[in-house]
Amino acid sequence: MSTKKTLNVAMIGQGFMGRAHSNAYQQVNHFFDTNFNLYLKVICGRDREQLKGIASQWGWAETETDWRKLIDRKDVDLIDIGTPNNLHAEMAIAAAEAGKIVLCEKPLAMNVAEAERMVQAVKGKPNLVWFNYRRVPAIAFAKQLIDEGRIGDVYHYRATYLNSSGLNASRANTWRYSKATAGSGAAGDLLSHLIDLALWLNGPITELCSMLKTFVPGRDVDDAAVMMTRFANGSVGTFEASRYGTGNRNRNMFEIHGSKGAAVFNLEEMNRLQFFDVNDPSELSGMRNILVTGPGHPYVNQFWPPGHVIGYEHTFVATLADFLKAMHEGNEFHANFEDGLKVQGVLEAVEQSAAKEKWVALGR
Amino acid sequence: MSTKKTLNVAMIGQGFMGRAHSNAYQQVNHFFDTNFNLYLKVICGRDREQLKGIASQWGWAETETDWRKLIDRKDVDLIDIGTPNNLHAEMAIAAAEAGKIVLCEKPLAMNVAEAERMVQAVKGKPNLVWFNYRRVPAIAFAKQLIDEGRIGDVYHYRATYLNSSGLNASRANTWRYSKATAGSGAAGDLLSHLIDLALWLNGPITELCSMLKTFVPGRDVDDAAVMMTRFANGSVGTFEASRYGTGNRNRNMFEIHGSKGAAVFNLEEMNRLQFFDVNDPSELSGMRNILVTGPGHPYVNQFWPPGHVIGYEHTFVATLADFLKAMHEGNEFHANFEDGLKVQGVLEAVEQSAAKEKWVALGR
Amino acid sequence: MSTKKTLNVAMIGQGFMGRAHSNAYQQVNHFFDTNFNLYLKVICGRDREQLKGIASQWGWAETETDWRKLIDRKDVDLIDIGTPNNLHAEMAIAAAEAGKIVLCEKPLAMNVAEAERMVQAVKGKPNLVWFNYRRVPAIAFAKQLIDEGRIGDVYHYRATYLNSSGLNASRANTWRYSKATAGSGAAGDLLSHLIDLALWLNGPITELCSMLKTFVPGRDVDDAAVMMTRFANGSVGTFEASRYGTGNRNRNMFEIHGSKGAAVFNLEEMNRLQFFDVNDPSELSGMRNILVTGPGHPYVNQFWPPGHVIGYEHTFVATLADFLKAMHEGNEFHANFEDGLKVQGVLEAVEQSAAKEKWVALGR
Amino acid sequence: MSTKKTLNVAMIGQGFMGRAHSNAYQQVNHFFDTNFNLYLKVICGRDREQLKGIASQWGWAETETDWRKLIDRKDVDLIDIGTPNNLHAEMAIAAAEAGKIVLCEKPLAMNVAEAERMVQAVKGKPNLVWFNYRRVPAIAFAKQLIDEGRIGDVYHYRATYLNSSGLNASRANTWRYSKATAGSGAAGDLLSHLIDLALWLNGPITELCSMLKTFVPGRDVDDAAVMMTRFANGSVGTFEASRYGTGNRNRNMFEIHGSKGAAVFNLEEMNRLQFFDVNDPSELSGMRNILVTGPGHPYVNQFWPPGHVIGYEHTFVATLADFLKAMHEGNEFHANFEDGLKVQGVLEAVEQSAAKEKWVALGR
Repeated sequence: MSTKKTLNVAMIGQGFMGRAHSNAYQQVNHFFDTNFNLYLKVICGRDREQLKGIASQWGWAETETDWRKLIDRKDVDLIDIGTPNNLHAEMAIAAAEAGKIVLCEKPLAMNVAEAERMVQAVKGKPNLVWFNYRRVPAIAFAKQLIDEGRIGDVYHYRATYLNSSGLNASRANTWRYSKATAGSGAAGDLLSHLIDLALWLNGPITELCSMLKTFVPGRDVDDAAVMMTRFANGSVGTFEASRYGTGNRNRNMFEIHGSKGAAVFNLEEMNRLQFFDVNDPSELSGMRNILVTGPGHPYVNQFWPPGHVIGYEHTFVATLADFLKAMHEGNEFHANFEDGLKVQGVLEAVEQSAAKEKWVALGR
Repeated sequence: MSTKKTLNVAMIGQGFMGRAHSNAYQQVNHFFDTNFNLYLKVICGRDREQLKGIASQWGWAETETDWRKLIDRKDVDLIDIGTPNNLHAEMAIAAAEAGKIVLCEKPLAMNVAEAERMVQAVKGKPNLVWFNYRRVPAIAFAKQLIDEGRIGDVYHYRATYLNSSGLNASRANTWRYSKATAGSGAAGDLLSHLIDLALWLNGPITELCSMLKTFVPGRDVDDAAVMMTRFANGSVGTFEASRYGTGNRNRNMFEIHGSKGAAVFNLEEMNRLQFFDVNDPSELSGMRNILVTGPGHPYVNQFWPPGHVIGYEHTFVATLADFLKAMHEGNEFHANFEDGLKVQGVLEAVEQSAAKEKWVALGR
Repeated sequence: MSTKKTLNVAMIGQGFMGRAHSNAYQQVNHFFDTNFNLYLKVICGRDREQLKGIASQWGWAETETDWRKLIDRKDVDLIDIGTPNNLHAEMAIAAAEAGKIVLCEKPLAMNVAEAERMVQAVKGKPNLVWFNYRRVPAIAFAKQLIDEGRIGDVYHYRATYLNSSGLNASRANTWRYSKATAGSGAAGDLLSHLIDLALWLNGPITELCSMLKTFVPGRDVDDAAVMMTRFANGSVGTFEASRYGTGNRNRNMFEIHGSKGAAVFNLEEMNRLQFFDVNDPSELSGMRNILVTGPGHPYVNQFWPPGHVIGYEHTFVATLADFLKAMHEGNEFHANFEDGLKVQGVLEAVEQSAAKEKWVALGR
Repeated sequence: MSTKKTLNVAMIGQGFMGRAHSNAYQQVNHFFDTNFNLYLKVICGRDREQLKGIASQWGWAETETDWRKLIDRKDVDLIDIGTPNNLHAEMAIAAAEAGKIVLCEKPLAMNVAEAERMVQAVKGKPNLVWFNYRRVPAIAFAKQLIDEGRIGDVYHYRATYLNSSGLNASRANTWRYSKATAGSGAAGDLLSHLIDLALWLNGPITELCSMLKTFVPGRDVDDAAVMMTRFANGSVGTFEASRYGTGNRNRNMFEIHGSKGAAVFNLEEMNRLQFFDVNDPSELSGMRNILVTGPGHPYVNQFWPPGHVIGYEHTFVATLADFLKAMHEGNEFHANFEDGLKVQGVLEAVEQSAAKEKWVALGR
């Protein structure tokens, strides 16, 4: 009776992101009225036994251990890549060339060259990079405030992504801590999120100067990535991403200071946005601690009544919903591979700047 | 191939709770390895058109507008009641007498007499009252700290449930604001949550003295319910529930002060628990702001890696998971109808005390 | 050259309050342009040796161990009483009868009878009770917001004064923990502050119901005092004062919820006021975290430029400045002995209500 | 009868710092048992009328409008310089050469050359730079934690000093916004504080890369100063000072992350220190919100009992007390002119780095 079109989904990846994306496919039509039925066709990974458990747990119809077999299947419409970074390009390009809809985890690629080929490959086809934080309601609300002029001319954009995963020996042994599989450390893992949000919220970066630091001898990726930037809008940027931010679990934070107002966000308090309005009478002015659970806030009408907080995974659900909507309406979705390429461009400049110890200009 | 037993679920209720429970049935096996397949057989409500939409959205196989028809169906194993309070007793008793597993929203009943009959009806059968907040990880963690003796002898238990729904004309027009359908106002709606948590965390209340207040002329339920209590453990209790707590969205908060430590929780910061340890050196002591997302915290291993917050609906998911586990293992689950009856007993004493303007002793 | 009138001050008390008042006399003309020179003539206490140290430290010209000798001295204009509570009445009445300006620490007296005699004695003469918290800039600002109608019709007034002095054996051995010297425990020490603020900010209490609790066997004063109140303005009050509020150092806190706004204060964050404005657009509304250090805030122009916080002792300085101003202008100052008597009336009702376990109506 | 030595003080400066220092001279012996009587002999400034008011208000015996006259006076022991920065060097050198004890506001000088001459001039004589924030009890406590090894090996040191003075036209018109009188903008005014604290808490900076930004066309000083640093201890530093930090009044903040713990301070919550202990059991770990008002905390025994907050001016009082103690005992005091010179060295490197847009190495 449903007139929704069915999309057969293949997921590559069986880790944290495999679970988070599985949840999105299962939940998106519960919260959003999309035009698609999503059929969880096949999940692909290397560990056959574990894969069966995940498939059973999350409702995937089939399992597969050879990702190349997915490419040729006619009964797969959409391929979602949640693997280590070094596999993104090959998989995404193959999938795109086979005519699939391609979704890919961030960072998009190992470098700009890869990212450019990926962008070429998906040209004209729906594509997405999982910069999921754009759909945190509080962040989407910050974007709305900026677009409405409530921040005014921006003076400062300050972003930090601090966790303490480096202090945890068991976490520091995964593919994310190796150059061969991750390309970089905190830069690709954490700073990439900050960059995507910054470009979206505050516009292009024109120049940057960075420092990369590895605290553990012998490790071949950065543990911390720091940079100063100049934005095209004249504002000053500072960025810091670290896996050695003792005492912080998942502090993805930004602050923006402007001539009309200011906003502060911290992922550890994901349902909050701090907002300061310069127009408030001076004696009544202070950071407003806004619980961004509606009414009037982005996305939250889809979830629960005002005052009922949502969690991390809803950012994937809302991202997927927006992607499906754009695809249905024939509109361009963001963050797409082009956005992923832009982030990659900044990441590459970060590496150059750190290596040469000087400022680097970014082409636009 | 699965050896899980299938339970056919019938849900009565198509509002906020209908959605929240639907989510729990859909999600429980994604996060918990239960011994049951939950088949969303039929959802029941009065508004046929809206019902179809909800069924389609949440994956219910059938819809029904006459709840009595569910009772006799052999293909329904479990009946979940998410209706206005005045319907709980009749539905639950009929369902129980037909041999169904019965789950019921809180408050369990309109009064103690109803609740007692309900308890009788479900005797020997699995049953549950949706006091979902017991399964907020941070609250379950507080319970664990208390049980481990980290709070010590309790001096004070202080609980507030403040929202500002009363200031919102559109919300103040629902069944929750009428005696005929809700039985009481803030007392049954909000104070009941505080009471259940208090009895669970701090043990029996022996005496109480209360005040009920209606701010809006002509309204026949309380807008605010306040009480002082004596607990069996010698501690002093204060409770305040209000729909006129301007500036608060969903502040379900408790504080517990003891000889060894203190803990503070606020639902608006659902993933946090504040904890104070008297054993810390004096100069290093302060409330610890704990992000209760693991490792080592209740439930959270089921959800996302440490630092990734969960939302309101996970409390229903975890409640359901524990219920299914207890049922599988033949153990008693809490909060069950007996717990619901205890809360009802306190609520009735609240009404008596407020009406007579005096202290009331509670039988145990 | 100065045209200021000199007041010779005699201070009775050599403890914490002796120091805090000494500071006020030394500092008031540094921050406020009063019409008086304050000459620190004589400090009086029982411990002669310690007294000499304090006199030397704080610039008192003389010391005295017999307070009665102060009464007859012509060269003493103002007597300030900072002794244990049981001495207030006798000293204040003697001083007043000798024509002195009388200032007295809170609570004013041991009971209403004493307080009434004290009010009689000071009639027509300048007098003050040291309810210093009225002059916390953030609290004075809250009063201003209330008077401007920014809170609107009040629904709730909630006050807590929690410290953990009871857990500290060395503090629990002082005169404040004995009925003979203090009259009561947490009630007179802490609850009295809450009552004075409540009467000032929210108007008269018409009825109350209270509970007093002593956690330590054998102690003859209350360790905690709790009450529910009805205010003349129709709002509901809850109060809790305790010396067993583990984890709190000096949490003198109030919250006020009304039809137009809300305000929250906590002495541990003395330079802050939280304010919620119902008129803010819903999606932009949240508690505003106001740093009450100016511009536009009460008193703070006297102290430091905006953003520079002040400390506890400034409340005494500002209180004294206002007192001197009122005296110079011939206006009535508050909090005066009449205000102290009102608090005493509520405290007496608290004791009656707790003893009889019932509601008590307050005259007026 | 007192055996204290009297010091005749001359203060140059009649603005905010003139008041703050006057307060320190008046208060130091009230809170600390120093070995000196401080006689407020003469205050010097350009505005004769205003000066009289200040002298009368703060108890200075005389006024003077020509600072050179102070130099030759035999009855002046100590000269305290609270003037615009461009006057520091000449005054300090003249005072030192005349044998005076010299105290000087920060930043010490307009440049390194001046600062070096000043250091030469005071060699062998007691001298002080008013880096008052070292004596915030919470900051001194952080230093103690670091020295005790509770932070461990440092990974990150992050400091921000944000106010919004630039948005306030009336403040943006003072000497602090002109190169001729201030030397620099946010750098000398705000960043200098951050640098002094960083050098004290985290040791020498070996290299830095900076950016200076002026938002207002035509202004000849920086509105914001940002830098990345490498510390000798291997940690990564980031610094940001701005007068355009909308929404912040006086956010002098630092965070330090190490292998054993972390600490966070913010001047707007001056009586607090956040502390994280890696040794806490993982599930019980969280930032501890410590109210640094004793017991066991630096300085606070001098002020009020635990739980009673102190204000901004106490940092000057404690600084002066420590200076007098060091002078009495013949010990070196910090921050002295040598410390001021070190800060000047960093500030000069900041200017060079910003001008050349490259990393600059610092001599040690």
